[in-house]
Amino acid sequence: MWNLWMRRALALAALAEGRTSPNPLVGAVVLNREGRLVGEGFHARSGEPHAEVGALAQAGTAAAGGTLIVTLEPCCHHGRTPPCSRAVLQAGVARVVVALEDPDPRVAGGGIAQLRKAGVVVITGVLRQEAAEQNRAFLHRVRTGRPWGVLKWAMGLDGRTALPNGTSQWISGADSRRWVHQLRAGCDAVIVGGGTVRADDPLLTSRGRRDPEPLRVVLSRGLDLPAEAQLWDTASAATLVAHGPEAAGKQAPNGPERLELEQCEPLPLMQHLAARGCNQVLWECGSELAAAAIRQGCVQEVAAVLAPKLMGGVAARTPLGELGFTAMDQVLCGQLLPPRPIGDDWLLSLRLGG
Amino acid sequence: MWNLWMRRALALAALAEGRTSPNPLVGAVVLNREGRLVGEGFHARSGEPHAEVGALAQAGTAAAGGTLIVTLEPCCHHGRTPPCSRAVLQAGVARVVVALEDPDPRVAGGGIAQLRKAGVVVITGVLRQEAAEQNRAFLHRVRTGRPWGVLKWAMGLDGRTALPNGTSQWISGADSRRWVHQLRAGCDAVIVGGGTVRADDPLLTSRGRRDPEPLRVVLSRGLDLPAEAQLWDTASAATLVAHGPEAAGKQAPNGPERLELEQCEPLPLMQHLAARGCNQVLWECGSELAAAAIRQGCVQEVAAVLAPKLMGGVAARTPLGELGFTAMDQVLCGQLLPPRPIGDDWLLSLRLGG
Repeated sequence: MWNLWMRRALALAALAEGRTSPNPLVGAVVLNREGRLVGEGFHARSGEPHAEVGALAQAGTAAAGGTLIVTLEPCCHHGRTPPCSRAVLQAGVARVVVALEDPDPRVAGGGIAQLRKAGVVVITGVLRQEAAEQNRAFLHRVRTGRPWGVLKWAMGLDGRTALPNGTSQWISGADSRRWVHQLRAGCDAVIVGGGTVRADDPLLTSRGRRDPEPLRVVLSRGLDLPAEAQLWDTASAATLVAHGPEAAGKQAPNGPERLELEQCEPLPLMQHLAARGCNQVLWECGSELAAAAIRQGCVQEVAAVLAPKLMGGVAARTPLGELGFTAMDQVLCGQLLPPRPIGDDWLLSLRLGG
Repeated sequence: MWNLWMRRALALAALAEGRTSPNPLVGAVVLNREGRLVGEGFHARSGEPHAEVGALAQAGTAAAGGTLIVTLEPCCHHGRTPPCSRAVLQAGVARVVVALEDPDPRVAGGGIAQLRKAGVVVITGVLRQEAAEQNRAFLHRVRTGRPWGVLKWAMGLDGRTALPNGTSQWISGADSRRWVHQLRAGCDAVIVGGGTVRADDPLLTSRGRRDPEPLRVVLSRGLDLPAEAQLWDTASAATLVAHGPEAAGKQAPNGPERLELEQCEPLPLMQHLAARGCNQVLWECGSELAAAAIRQGCVQEVAAVLAPKLMGGVAARTPLGELGFTAMDQVLCGQLLPPRPIGDDWLLSLRLGG
């Protein structure tokens, strides 16, 4: 009976998609004693009120004896804002309906326990799967210490990402390229290698769809980067140039932040970005870095934009480099989500799992 | 008002899909004077009665003053069976509803003209597009002198058709492999190159879904073929080995029919197969022959089975060889039909046009 209201709470949570990191997406709905809607709220971004608090504030005294429906377990710890469990008790709701327990070790069932101890009826697991899907990036980061990685590429039907002479603009259509801006807006960082900077001089922003723009990251072994590049202009978006110890003595471009990793590899970069609060990152790199990211478990999802084109070419680039497989039972298997049309292209999403 | 009955006629026609070559698919429905269904028929295979004749026979005297709804213009020439236009006149129908004019130069509007001259009301163009889609292979052969070519491959999401060491069994799932048998059953011939025979020793049959099995064709420049191969056993399905003049003096395998083409290329093979009555052929070849078939306009449709897998590998095979493109405005563009799930795989159909 709570599914409908939980669906509404999930829809509210989704309004802030890509903007709450390092926090999860949360939506909440308050019903009064008679079951009528009296408050709604969602967590808009880190540092701003939690969803429950906003919804209870909207409800005011009407919340007393009523029901709070919330997509994630109310927190019970002081972060940048006071614990939500306290606000819930103060509002005097009789019942709390929760989709998903918060895996954050500071919460992890503590919020629910506190409410129950105070005599509030707590129902859990309502649309748990949908809530976990919505917060997959947050959950993955909390569980693994690494952001959820999305690897994006555009290809023709014959799996080519460039012509034999390297030409790759444009494989996908204008609608798909706008969709990529939207995809970036849902990510906390966008990552390329030095080769992509040298070949394409990309901008890598969401074109204003996200504020602030996602952090643009260049992972460069040798720091052999061009002196001029769009990424070095950090007026509209921040850029991080990460390298390994071998480039410690080399000069980095002027403008971007510089980061020396213990190794110039995807995994230590992911750990750094998670510590910085990134829930989800987007890999927009070439085939070699993409293959390394996959080998190191830094890709949870592939978003391949398929253009209705045949490009051909024995030496034409393909999306991935060497993964080291010699038998079909070794290859990476995932689940293809139902393809989605974007203009004349189709989006193929492969979920590799968390 | 005729669309519903024409849809029924198209559904009847589809019952013989892949079995009528060199003839088209045709379905027919007869309504009596009051508009009630009194006869149905479809063309089952070459040499058997045409759809109209079957439907009129079923209707008997009830056809007089009634309506014949038929997916293709009734023929007006003696082929293996007498002209249908005569049967229509003899049945005394008052009205004939036709989806599509027959492009066969022996008909080409002549059937319709004959009916009108005899005082029958003829309505044309009802569901013309659907009828043309259903008979695209027949129409393509009549217009171009070449069969409609379908190029099939199976690949991972990263566009690979084999691992770097050549392993390719199996990329697609069991459901997709059964679907390929069904695809073959809709084709008059299945074509591979010598390399596929040497590497995979394929059977290339519909596993009994079509009787007779499609003609299995090997296009081999040098006739350097294995002495033993499943294709050389022609007990259950015929095999044709085609080669160019350079292999004229060489020995071909025992069992299959042998054909010397003026050139060992896809186009002369297509002309031969069209002359033999093939409306639709399936290319199940490697990347080089596939690219040649595309370059020579012998592929009208790509059927790519996409497996939810990442295979990787710098040297891994891809679906197509060199097409000679150097700029994105040269690449072959088509239309991606809505993807269709087959087990865990997805079928991606690219229509390149007729």
